[in-house]
Amino acid sequence: MKRLLFSFTLCFLIFSLQAAETDSLWLRMPVGGKAEVICRKQSATLHIASAELRGAWQGVPVVLEVKQSKQLKKLGNEGFTILSSADGKKITIASAGEIGVLYGAYHLLRLQQTGVVTAKLNVVESPAYKIRVLNHWDNLDGTIERGYAGRSLWRWEELPDTLSPRYEAYARANASIGINGTVLNNVNASPLILSAKYLQKVAALAAVFRPYGIRVYLSINFSSPAALGGLPTSDPLDKSVCAWWKEKVGEIYRLIPDFGGFLVKANSEGLPGPQDFGRTHADGANMLADVLKPHNGIVMWRAFVYNPGDEDRAKQAYQEFVPLDGQFRDNVIIQVKNGPVDFQPREPFSPLFGAMKRTAVMPEFQITQEYLGFANHLVFLAPLWKECLESDTYQQGKGSTVARVTDGSVYSHKLSAIAGVANTGDGANWCGHPFAQANWYAFGRLAWNHELTSAQIADEWIKQTFPDKHSVAGNVTPKSDAWQTVFLPQVRDMMLQSREAAVSYMMPLGLHHQFAFGHHYGPEPWCNVPGARADWLPSYYHKADSIGLGFDRSSTGSNAVSQYQSPLCEMLNDVHTCPENLLLWFHHVPWGYKMKDGRTLWDELCYTYDHGVQQVRSFQKTWDVLEPFVDAPRFLDVQHRLRIQMRDAIWWKDACLLYFQQFSRRPIPYDIERPVHDLDSLEHYHLKITNYENAVR
Amino acid sequence: MKRLLFSFTLCFLIFSLQAAETDSLWLRMPVGGKAEVICRKQSATLHIASAELRGAWQGVPVVLEVKQSKQLKKLGNEGFTILSSADGKKITIASAGEIGVLYGAYHLLRLQQTGVVTAKLNVVESPAYKIRVLNHWDNLDGTIERGYAGRSLWRWEELPDTLSPRYEAYARANASIGINGTVLNNVNASPLILSAKYLQKVAALAAVFRPYGIRVYLSINFSSPAALGGLPTSDPLDKSVCAWWKEKVGEIYRLIPDFGGFLVKANSEGLPGPQDFGRTHADGANMLADVLKPHNGIVMWRAFVYNPGDEDRAKQAYQEFVPLDGQFRDNVIIQVKNGPVDFQPREPFSPLFGAMKRTAVMPEFQITQEYLGFANHLVFLAPLWKECLESDTYQQGKGSTVARVTDGSVYSHKLSAIAGVANTGDGANWCGHPFAQANWYAFGRLAWNHELTSAQIADEWIKQTFPDKHSVAGNVTPKSDAWQTVFLPQVRDMMLQSREAAVSYMMPLGLHHQFAFGHHYGPEPWCNVPGARADWLPSYYHKADSIGLGFDRSSTGSNAVSQYQSPLCEMLNDVHTCPENLLLWFHHVPWGYKMKDGRTLWDELCYTYDHGVQQVRSFQKTWDVLEPFVDAPRFLDVQHRLRIQMRDAIWWKDACLLYFQQFSRRPIPYDIERPVHDLDSLEHYHLKITNYENAVR
Repeated sequence: MKRLLFSFTLCFLIFSLQAAETDSLWLRMPVGGKAEVICRKQSATLHIASAELRGAWQGVPVVLEVKQSKQLKKLGNEGFTILSSADGKKITIASAGEIGVLYGAYHLLRLQQTGVVTAKLNVVESPAYKIRVLNHWDNLDGTIERGYAGRSLWRWEELPDTLSPRYEAYARANASIGINGTVLNNVNASPLILSAKYLQKVAALAAVFRPYGIRVYLSINFSSPAALGGLPTSDPLDKSVCAWWKEKVGEIYRLIPDFGGFLVKANSEGLPGPQDFGRTHADGANMLADVLKPHNGIVMWRAFVYNPGDEDRAKQAYQEFVPLDGQFRDNVIIQVKNGPVDFQPREPFSPLFGAMKRTAVMPEFQITQEYLGFANHLVFLAPLWKECLESDTYQQGKGSTVARVTDGSVYSHKLSAIAGVANTGDGANWCGHPFAQANWYAFGRLAWNHELTSAQIADEWIKQTFPDKHSVAGNVTPKSDAWQTVFLPQVRDMMLQSREAAVSYMMPLGLHHQFAFGHHYGPEPWCNVPGARADWLPSYYHKADSIGLGFDRSSTGSNAVSQYQSPLCEMLNDVHTCPENLLLWFHHVPWGYKMKDGRTLWDELCYTYDHGVQQVRSFQKTWDVLEPFVDAPRFLDVQHRLRIQMRDAIWWKDACLLYFQQFSRRPIPYDIERPVHDLDSLEHYHLKITNYENAVR
Repeated sequence: MKRLLFSFTLCFLIFSLQAAETDSLWLRMPVGGKAEVICRKQSATLHIASAELRGAWQGVPVVLEVKQSKQLKKLGNEGFTILSSADGKKITIASAGEIGVLYGAYHLLRLQQTGVVTAKLNVVESPAYKIRVLNHWDNLDGTIERGYAGRSLWRWEELPDTLSPRYEAYARANASIGINGTVLNNVNASPLILSAKYLQKVAALAAVFRPYGIRVYLSINFSSPAALGGLPTSDPLDKSVCAWWKEKVGEIYRLIPDFGGFLVKANSEGLPGPQDFGRTHADGANMLADVLKPHNGIVMWRAFVYNPGDEDRAKQAYQEFVPLDGQFRDNVIIQVKNGPVDFQPREPFSPLFGAMKRTAVMPEFQITQEYLGFANHLVFLAPLWKECLESDTYQQGKGSTVARVTDGSVYSHKLSAIAGVANTGDGANWCGHPFAQANWYAFGRLAWNHELTSAQIADEWIKQTFPDKHSVAGNVTPKSDAWQTVFLPQVRDMMLQSREAAVSYMMPLGLHHQFAFGHHYGPEPWCNVPGARADWLPSYYHKADSIGLGFDRSSTGSNAVSQYQSPLCEMLNDVHTCPENLLLWFHHVPWGYKMKDGRTLWDELCYTYDHGVQQVRSFQKTWDVLEPFVDAPRFLDVQHRLRIQMRDAIWWKDACLLYFQQFSRRPIPYDIERPVHDLDSLEHYHLKITNYENAVR
């Protein structure tokens, strides 16, 4: 029976999905519009704006204006206003830049699709971050690292001659939510991406994306001068190396005049970097920044570094980068994952945020659900990202949130940026799980305006993505009362609960890194791969013993708390003031420790896992009840994935509770649902998936 | 509270069980007794009785008497009395036969172990059925058809020279509950069992069993004269065939003077029989009866016959045998399975019971759980057998229960008998599931006294099988209040609920034969094996279509109801008076049919499946709470099997509801737990087990 739990045949489903039209994401707009659109200027970008409105806008005539008024210049080339005329017979979308007009057009259509067009529009918008970029971990062979929605969108073998219609659809989707950059290839980069052959292909993609305001960036391999250029070294202070990069960058800009720049993963998880030559991260980043500078290119340098030594992994990025603060060029930005370890269901924010005061820092979020159930689990990530962005670093006093220390509000740097690791693939619905599209959407919307609430974003997405089945698909016909009062709030609630549910059934109370080795799907708290790095094993993080559970990062332990600013440092350091949802991240807590609700730690752990399981049961019920509102293919697809999620939630709960029970030696409280698996069989179960494969098994 | 042995892995558990002493079943009696036992007569059987009492009896002196008083002769050689003397200082066990004294000794010890010894004993007991026999479906190669507790107890390769201590332990266990016969080999019999070589082995077993009052019987292959004897035919009316059987039977009785007789499966599921030669079942049975008669041997002739034709399989045994009523010799008894199909979780009683008026008929029950979860599911079968025995056939007016038409109360025949298909194997605990021992126990007790209630039998078994952990193992020390008020009632309730739970999660409301092809474990309502007999496929029985579900056996359908006596026939024929727990056995019922509780058939089906699932959840909770009362190996073993049962219950529910939903096209009521499997993946799932393998996976 155990096999039955995990084996599922998707043949039929995959076939039917692949046979279907490509999913139109949240852009299910009316067809056959008759809107009057007036635009005096002509350009590719303005043409798109006009065409989108002509095709779908159902209201009064719209005037598109590019002009350099004082107000508009203040909003920047991407900001815009949408104003109704005094008599309400006309709407004007205006911006200092053409791209701002396009963004305004998508914004107006969003207002229409979400049913919030008012008689008198007075919209003023500009983006929170200057650079809003997707990171594609796509390899040149078409596989995607941590991709669960098929193969890469980029058909390298066909490029540059053949252009898939997906490229423009991709650009359009991104533009509609304000994403203005894309890093095409994996941070674990092949040097080949910089070869003349591949740069031709990249240029072809850049040409498709350009009218949509999307700049192309590339991940580079720091050894490219040697590996691709044939030089004896890639030392960033070597003149021939600098010359090679200068020449290469020149070649790129001749092909792609608006090329964005480089993303670099260096001296991290075995990749080459400046430290291989005795240089610092700053040396490496600055060399690249200098050659990009004349072209207005930038360097996004990742701070995801750690080594298998005695030092707590969670401390290492801070230790490595804070001493370099102030040494980076102004066209370098340090890209920092939201938490100090690695995209776990819940982490505290990385202490680098706010601590790097004289260097631009950008958050890196993971849209693809590497640690959150792949494309099988419904997990809406806006609450996770909001939790990070709203965390107070206290670095410049109260209110120095991660959002404000990175968006330019607290520190004034030339650059501000935010990155999301994409969850796209060539599957018909783009993201694998129909609800995973909401995470792409949410990333874009938060990158534009991080003050939007998760509920607002969910509402927007649901309204655009699930037209009322009983009206014409994508029509603006007001949705039925039942849709508004039943479907919308129930789906919204499910989405808003989903991230906390995943934390609960996977790694609650600050537990982290309990996932299976390699593919990172499913629980393996017992994992012990012979010869593996200690910091890649769950026991490094859970520290379970007869006394208790959790990693002591307080002042009596690794003292990672000291990397946080006072008074946060002191709050985290004290087990009684540390937030309980991060308790086991910062403390080794006795099994019998009394939690705020009066339960012991062990009981709280059990009840929390079970609560997560019961939440998924409730999602199943919610979804099944909503069947009348949803087209059959999507209804069945989500129903199918919720069943997987349900089985996986039980798998996680049983695995973690039965494993940790060996240490706690306490009963699982008798009023919760009993385990249905045996620890022994779970320990011997191995999924046959690798890092690069889909979750489709 | 401190919990023991959570680090026990299953591997270790299994190893330790196999390494352990053989489980002593319900005979966990005190050791080192000092009882005075007086017995003037000497014999092997009386020696056992004395030794058992001396070893374990804790009370006043016991006198064992074999005497032919009028009262005792009326009770027969197996009946007995247990009487306290007037002054209470002595107890006398008396019987007309030595075996009656042994049964009395076991009865007295049972009273002690169950804590119901009173100051003044006045027990009078005699068995309900004369022959109380186990049918072992053991093959000569050591495998067991439908056996789930290891390999055969009979080590044919070692016999007759080596006698496993298991043989005597087996005889003792049977004698302790009054079983007086054993059919050693599979009804699908190899002719080789009658070879001189094997008869020597059988004789060795018979010698071990004899002092315990257990006669040996053999299943024979009807083609033995040809297959073993080399004759050109096995026609029962052929003189050379009769002569061969006469000679063979003589050979058997020379080796085993108290040999019981033959069990015959003929012209059934491909086995040879008299019909191969144009003869009737009566011709075949009578020929064998005639050669056995001089030796006091009998023939048990099975009525489990059906052919793949147009006629409803459930009707065929009746059609075949009722016309032969009165044609059988008086040392022939027709062995009839409890229901007309095949040991399903619930069937109506076979209409042959009571309809054969001039022929002795014996019930055949299945102790091994071929259709009830193998050794993985906790299912106490006394309620199933009681349901059959208490069913009123109305054949001689109201009160003609199956029990009374077979035990000699209604019809007076020379023979009365009852058979149980054994669940024993060479695994350390005999029956695979610790609770499966209760079914062996219950069969023996019901064969002796079918008026015992299921609750009484459960109580007896629990009290003897689970000594209070905190007293000396098996001691008679009164059990603790907690054991009496918590453990006993909770385990009893679980046992008493368990059969109905299994019906609910497997095949409720009269559904039947929905199990997987071949091994019969798990659901396969969709099963369609190319070329398979229609009557071996679930669709033959469920008849699901857009209108409804169930097999129309009413007068508008196969009219199987006509085989039942009035007024039962009319009651079953009317959908409104047919018991709802047999509704789909007798009727094709519309999905929207209103059940007595007001629900539609479809909803009732859904709620019933779910109720079964929730009952297993409650069994898990019950058992986990009872951990302090049970020794660790058995606690963990049962906990492990309940987890399998839980997963299987969900598997059954999901498979059947999702499959039938394709026909009902109605939603599964939204307040019940949602399916966690997809129909498609269930349909493609196949267990790698065969008929003969253990369920241990």
